[in-house]
Amino acid sequence: MIRHDGRTQDMARPVRLTTHFLQHPDGAVLIELGATKVICTAMVEEKVPPFLKGTGSGWVTAEYAMLPGSTQQRKQRDITKGRLDGRSSEIQRLIGRSLRSVVDLKALGERTIWIDCDVISADGGTRTASITGAYVAMVLAMEKLMDKGLLSQLPTTDWVAAISVGVCGGEQLLDLCYLEDSSADVDMNVIMNGKGEFIEVQGTGEARPFSRVELDGLLALAEKGIQSMIGAQRKALTDELGRRTSHE
Amino acid sequence: MIRHDGRTQDMARPVRLTTHFLQHPDGAVLIELGATKVICTAMVEEKVPPFLKGTGSGWVTAEYAMLPGSTQQRKQRDITKGRLDGRSSEIQRLIGRSLRSVVDLKALGERTIWIDCDVISADGGTRTASITGAYVAMVLAMEKLMDKGLLSQLPTTDWVAAISVGVCGGEQLLDLCYLEDSSADVDMNVIMNGKGEFIEVQGTGEARPFSRVELDGLLALAEKGIQSMIGAQRKALTDELGRRTSHE
Amino acid sequence: MIRHDGRTQDMARPVRLTTHFLQHPDGAVLIELGATKVICTAMVEEKVPPFLKGTGSGWVTAEYAMLPGSTQQRKQRDITKGRLDGRSSEIQRLIGRSLRSVVDLKALGERTIWIDCDVISADGGTRTASITGAYVAMVLAMEKLMDKGLLSQLPTTDWVAAISVGVCGGEQLLDLCYLEDSSADVDMNVIMNGKGEFIEVQGTGEARPFSRVELDGLLALAEKGIQSMIGAQRKALTDELGRRTSHE
Amino acid sequence: MIRHDGRTQDMARPVRLTTHFLQHPDGAVLIELGATKVICTAMVEEKVPPFLKGTGSGWVTAEYAMLPGSTQQRKQRDITKGRLDGRSSEIQRLIGRSLRSVVDLKALGERTIWIDCDVISADGGTRTASITGAYVAMVLAMEKLMDKGLLSQLPTTDWVAAISVGVCGGEQLLDLCYLEDSSADVDMNVIMNGKGEFIEVQGTGEARPFSRVELDGLLALAEKGIQSMIGAQRKALTDELGRRTSHE
Amino acid sequence: MIRHDGRTQDMARPVRLTTHFLQHPDGAVLIELGATKVICTAMVEEKVPPFLKGTGSGWVTAEYAMLPGSTQQRKQRDITKGRLDGRSSEIQRLIGRSLRSVVDLKALGERTIWIDCDVISADGGTRTASITGAYVAMVLAMEKLMDKGLLSQLPTTDWVAAISVGVCGGEQLLDLCYLEDSSADVDMNVIMNGKGEFIEVQGTGEARPFSRVELDGLLALAEKGIQSMIGAQRKALTDELGRRTSHE
Amino acid sequence: MIRHDGRTQDMARPVRLTTHFLQHPDGAVLIELGATKVICTAMVEEKVPPFLKGTGSGWVTAEYAMLPGSTQQRKQRDITKGRLDGRSSEIQRLIGRSLRSVVDLKALGERTIWIDCDVISADGGTRTASITGAYVAMVLAMEKLMDKGLLSQLPTTDWVAAISVGVCGGEQLLDLCYLEDSSADVDMNVIMNGKGEFIEVQGTGEARPFSRVELDGLLALAEKGIQSMIGAQRKALTDELGRRTSHE
Repeated sequence: MIRHDGRTQDMARPVRLTTHFLQHPDGAVLIELGATKVICTAMVEEKVPPFLKGTGSGWVTAEYAMLPGSTQQRKQRDITKGRLDGRSSEIQRLIGRSLRSVVDLKALGERTIWIDCDVISADGGTRTASITGAYVAMVLAMEKLMDKGLLSQLPTTDWVAAISVGVCGGEQLLDLCYLEDSSADVDMNVIMNGKGEFIEVQGTGEARPFSRVELDGLLALAEKGIQSMIGAQRKALTDELGRRTSHE
Repeated sequence: MIRHDGRTQDMARPVRLTTHFLQHPDGAVLIELGATKVICTAMVEEKVPPFLKGTGSGWVTAEYAMLPGSTQQRKQRDITKGRLDGRSSEIQRLIGRSLRSVVDLKALGERTIWIDCDVISADGGTRTASITGAYVAMVLAMEKLMDKGLLSQLPTTDWVAAISVGVCGGEQLLDLCYLEDSSADVDMNVIMNGKGEFIEVQGTGEARPFSRVELDGLLALAEKGIQSMIGAQRKALTDELGRRTSHE
Repeated sequence: MIRHDGRTQDMARPVRLTTHFLQHPDGAVLIELGATKVICTAMVEEKVPPFLKGTGSGWVTAEYAMLPGSTQQRKQRDITKGRLDGRSSEIQRLIGRSLRSVVDLKALGERTIWIDCDVISADGGTRTASITGAYVAMVLAMEKLMDKGLLSQLPTTDWVAAISVGVCGGEQLLDLCYLEDSSADVDMNVIMNGKGEFIEVQGTGEARPFSRVELDGLLALAEKGIQSMIGAQRKALTDELGRRTSHE
Repeated sequence: MIRHDGRTQDMARPVRLTTHFLQHPDGAVLIELGATKVICTAMVEEKVPPFLKGTGSGWVTAEYAMLPGSTQQRKQRDITKGRLDGRSSEIQRLIGRSLRSVVDLKALGERTIWIDCDVISADGGTRTASITGAYVAMVLAMEKLMDKGLLSQLPTTDWVAAISVGVCGGEQLLDLCYLEDSSADVDMNVIMNGKGEFIEVQGTGEARPFSRVELDGLLALAEKGIQSMIGAQRKALTDELGRRTSHE
Repeated sequence: MIRHDGRTQDMARPVRLTTHFLQHPDGAVLIELGATKVICTAMVEEKVPPFLKGTGSGWVTAEYAMLPGSTQQRKQRDITKGRLDGRSSEIQRLIGRSLRSVVDLKALGERTIWIDCDVISADGGTRTASITGAYVAMVLAMEKLMDKGLLSQLPTTDWVAAISVGVCGGEQLLDLCYLEDSSADVDMNVIMNGKGEFIEVQGTGEARPFSRVELDGLLALAEKGIQSMIGAQRKALTDELGRRTSHE
Repeated sequence: MIRHDGRTQDMARPVRLTTHFLQHPDGAVLIELGATKVICTAMVEEKVPPFLKGTGSGWVTAEYAMLPGSTQQRKQRDITKGRLDGRSSEIQRLIGRSLRSVVDLKALGERTIWIDCDVISADGGTRTASITGAYVAMVLAMEKLMDKGLLSQLPTTDWVAAISVGVCGGEQLLDLCYLEDSSADVDMNVIMNGKGEFIEVQGTGEARPFSRVELDGLLALAEKGIQSMIGAQRKALTDELGRRTSHE
C-alpha cells in the first residue's frame, strides 16, 4: 500500500530540525515534519512557581498555540475568543509532562525553563512534533546554562520524542498527515524515551473502538518512528554542539 | 499484598449508581466509587451546534467541574480565576468523546444531549467515574425521548465505562484512590465498550517511564475493572427500566 | 386555602439537614427544603484577606452557584459565559453578610471560613435554604477548630436562618416553591436571628407595589417559618454534637 | 440631635435635578443629593432582548458604575479587574426592577430603554439617588417618544423614588451621608411609588440585628424622605415639560 | 468659508475649564470644548509600579473611557464586552505619554498620579480635550502635594496641550467637531508644549493620502490652536491658584 | 557617523521578503528587516462584518502579536494575562488602517481579507515591517482571487510601506534597531504610498520634545527608506507573479 504522498505504511515524513534561527531565546528550534512546522523555543527564568520555592527543585513548563494562518480555515486567536482553547490546554500540559519526565529537576536547580511551541503550519502531528522539537530547544537552553557556568552537567536523564500512529481504511500507518488524521478510525500519540520505554500513550477510537491486536501493532509502529525522531534530535544536537550530550 | 483500604491489588472500590435523585434533568445519576462521588446529569436540547445544522445528526457534549468542597484543599472556582481549568477542559473533552463513541448520532436526530459531571467528593478516579455515571444518565435521557415518542429506539450502539489503573510501589493496582494516585509511578485511564474493545487509552509515566510488560499488565487489570463497572450500569438501568436496553 | 402541594398558607415545606455526607470539608450539610437541595460546605483557611491582616480579626465569606442540572432549563455555567451571574453575585454577598452577623470575628481569630453553597436542585427558596444550611456547616467547621484546640469556645453569637414569603393570588404564603415564586405579586426574603430580630429584610413588589399592611403580615409569617428553620438547625447540631451549642 | 452637617434627624440633604445637560441621550439628568452626584441617562433602542421578541412588550434595563474619581480612594475600573463589581451588579438589578415596577411594558411597545447611572461623586446614597434621577431621565426619554409620535401617552403608571435610612449611634436618621453610612448599625434602602406603597425594602443589620420597632420607625422616616424626592421629580418634570405628566 | 457652527477655518471651539467641581480627587477638571465634555481627575497614590520601585522616580498614568450616554448611539461598556476597547487603550496610552513628557518624574518622587478622563459628551476631539484638561487636573494634584509639604516645587517642566486638525472638503480646519471629523479626508492630532515644540504628532489619511504641503498647513493650524488651549490652562490655574505656576 | 551595526545614518537594514513559505494562507510572507522577523499572512473569508453587510463593500482587518520567544525577556501571551496588550491593539489598528488606505473596498467585493502579523523575532521596527510585509501578503491573496476568477483586477490603488525614523544622541537615523529605539529621544513611524504621499505619520518625543526642523529632517529620511521598502515589495511580487501588479 502506497500513501497519497508516496510513503509506505511504516514511513515517517522527513523531519528537519533547524537550530539557532532566532536571536533571543536560549534555545530555538524550527521543526519541520513534512508540511507541519513548529517554532520551539526555550527560555530560562531564574525563578520557580510558588509551590517549588525553597525546595531546590526547578521546573519545566510549556505553552502551545497555533498561528491564525497555520490552518486551512483561519484559526481565531485565543485572546479574541477570550479563553484558552481546550485542545491547546490539553496539548501544552502533555508537552510539559513529557519534557519533565526526562529532566532531573533537582539538578536543574531553582529555575524555570519556559517552552513555547508555536505552530506556523499544521499538517497533522503538531503535538508530537512539538515534543520532539521542544526537547532539542530545551537541551540547547541547558547547554547555555552550562556555558555560563550555572550548571556543571546536563540535567536531562534521557532523550524524549513523540510520534502519531493510526488506523486509516484498515491500514496501520506511522506519522499521520492531516488528510489521514482527519479520516482515521483510530488515532494514537506515543511518547517514548531513548531506552524505548513509554512516557505517555494516548490512543483514541475516533470512528470505532480498537482491539488489543491493533493496539499492539500501533505501538510497534510508533516505536520505529520514535527511534528515527531521536536520531534526528541526536544529529541536530551533535551538529550544533560538536559533542555528545551528557546522558549518553 | 493488601491495600490500605483492605482491597487486593485487582479489586475496584464498591460502585453505587443512584438514579432519579434530581427533579429537573432528563437523566440524573449519582455515582459513588468509594469516597469519590459525582453528580452526572443529562439534559436534552432540541438544537445542535452550528457545524451540525441541517445534517440530520445529533450531538453529545460534556462539561466537568469540581465543587470547591470536593477536595482536601478548597478548590477555587473557575469563574473566580477567570478561566477554565486546563485539567477540567481535558477531562470534559474526554467524557464527550467517550460517550459519542457509542452513540449513533444520526439515530439521535438533530438534538444535543448535554452531559454535566460535577464532582462533589474527590478521592481519585473522578474522570473515569464521570464516564461510567454519565453513560447511565445519557441512556436515561434517551429513554425519556423514547417515552415521549421522539425516538423509536435507543441510539446507543454499546455500553461504555472507564477505570483507572496504575503502578504504585512496584504493584499494579486497579482503581486507584487519591492516596495511591498521588504516589503512583505510572497512571493509566482506560475506557472500553461492552465488547471489551478500547475506546481510549491514556497512560502516563508520572514518576518514571513504563515498559511494554507493565502496559500489558495494566490493560488486563483495566479490562477486569471495566467489566464490573458495566455490570453496575446494567443493573442500574435494569432496575430502573425493568427491561434490557436496546443494544443488547 | 390549600396550596398545590397540600400545604396551608402558613406552612413551610419539610426541611432536612444531612450532616457529614462529604469527606473533605470541615463542615458539610445537604439541606433539602421540599425539592430544593443545596450542598453547603465550610472550609477553614488559616489566613485572612489583606484588609484584615494583622487586625486579629477573622472573616467569613460565601460563594453560591447553581449546577447546570439544577433548573428546568439547563443553566449555563458562569465560566462558559465568562462572567459571574449577577444574581449569584447578589446572593453570595447576602449569605456572607448574614453569617457574619452572628459571628464574633475577633473570637474567630485570623482565619477565614469559606462557605460554598451549590444548588443541586432548585425549586424556589435556594438563597434562604443556603443561609439556613450554611449556618450549620459553619458551626460544624467551628466545632472542628475547637476539637483541634484552635478555639476554646464557639465564636457564634446567635443562630441565623432565613425563609421566603410572598403574596400569590391575594394570599400571603410562607416558603414559596418555584411555581408560587414565579407567579408571586410580592416576594420577600427574611433573615432573622434566634432572638427574633432581623438580620436582613428584602421585599420586592414583583408584579405590583405592596402596602404596609401586607408588609406586616409577611413579616409575621416569616418569623414563624424562621423559628421552624432554627428548630431544624438545633436538632441537626444536637444530633451531631450530642450537646448544646455554646451561644445558648 | 443635630447631625455633623447641621441636619436634624429627619431631614434629607438638598436634592437638585438638572435636566438636558447632555447632548445625545434621549433623557439626561444630573442628580445631586448633597455631595453625591450621579449622571442618569436614558436611551431608547428600537429592539428588545430575545425573551421579549414578538411579545409586543418593551423593556427597561439599567447599568450602574462609579467613576474612578468618585470615591476617596480611587476606585479601580471594572475592566481593569476584568469583572463586574458584585455591588454594582446588585445595584443595577435593583434600579432596573424599580423602574419597571412603574412602567406598563406593553404600552411602551417593543423597544428597550437603557438607563445608565454613572456616579461622579459618592457621598452615600448613590443607589437611591440613581433611582430617583433615573426615573426622571426615563420619563424624559418617553416624552421624546411621544413628541416623535411613537407613543400616544406616557407608559408610566406612577412615580418611583428611593431614599436610604439607618440607625447610627442609637438615632434613626434619614438620608445617610457616607460618614453616617459607614458607621451605621442598621442600613435600609426603601423604594416607594407616588401612592406611598412599597416597591422594594432592603434592610440590613450591618453591626447588629434590628427590632420590629426600629423597622417601623425607619419605614416612617423613609416615607417622609421619598415624598420630598417625588416632589423634586415633579418639579423637575413640570419645569421641563410645562405640564403635568400623564399618570397624575 | 464659514463652518456649520459659524466658525472660520482657523477657529477652535470655545473652551471652558471648570476646576474643583468634585469632592474627592486631588485634582478635578471639567473641560468643555464646544459640546465635547470630559471629566478629568488626578489622584495621587503613594506607590509606584514594580518597575520603578526603589528608583526614586514617580509615575503618571492615564485611563480613558466614554460613558454610555456620551455618544449618539449608546456606547456599550467595556465590562459588558469583556474587553478594553482598542481605541480607548490607544488613547489612554497617548494621554499618559503626553503628560509624562512634561513631568520630571524624579522630582515627583516615588508616587503615582492616576489620571482619569471620562467623556460625558462626545462631539469630536475627546482625546485632545482629555490631554488639555488632564494637564490642569495633574497640576492641581501636584499643588496639593506642595500644600501638604510633600513637594517643594512643581515637578512639571512645561505646559502641554493638544488639538485636532484635519482636511474636510478640501479645507484645512482647526478643532474638528464630530460632524467634520467623520467626513474628514485627513485627520491629525497634535500635542505641543509651551515652547511650541512637538510632543506627539499623529496624522492619518482617513479617506485619502495627504501631501507634505498639507502636512505643513495642518501643523501651522495646530500650533495656533494649542496656543489658545495653553492660554485657557494658564487662566484656569491662575484663577485657581492666584499665582503663576512654577515652570514659567 | 557609523552606527553600531556598520550602517550610515540614512541606511535601512537589509530587507528580505520570502513568499509562499506556508501552505494554507492565501498569501504568506516572511519579512526580515535585519534581525526583525515577522510572519505576515492574508486569508480571505467570504463574508464581511455586520456594518458592511449588503453594502457591496469588502473589508481588510489585521491582527498583530509577538511570540513569547521574540523578545529578550520572554513575552507573556495575551491569553495568559487575559487581555489584549494595549500596544498590540494600537499596532493592529494601524496595520488595518494602512492597508485599507490603498484598497478599493468596493472593488474587493463583500469579502474580508484577514491579515495576521506574528513577530517571531523583534529587533525594532516590528510594526513598520508588519505593514510592509502584510501589503505583499494581501496582494498575493488578491492575486489568488483573480486566479480563481473571483476578481477581474487587483483592487489595490497603490503601494503602501512603512519605516521608522528617530533621533538618537543628536543624530537623525533611518530604521532604528532595538538598541537605538530604546535610547531614542524622538521616535517616528511613517507610512507612505507609492506616490510619496503620507498615509500616516506618528511622531513621539520619547525623551524630549522635538522641533519643526527635526520633524522635517525625519520625514525626508523616512521617504528615502520607504522608497527602498517599496522597491523590495515590487521585486518580491514581480519575482512571484512574473508580471507587474495592476496599479502601476
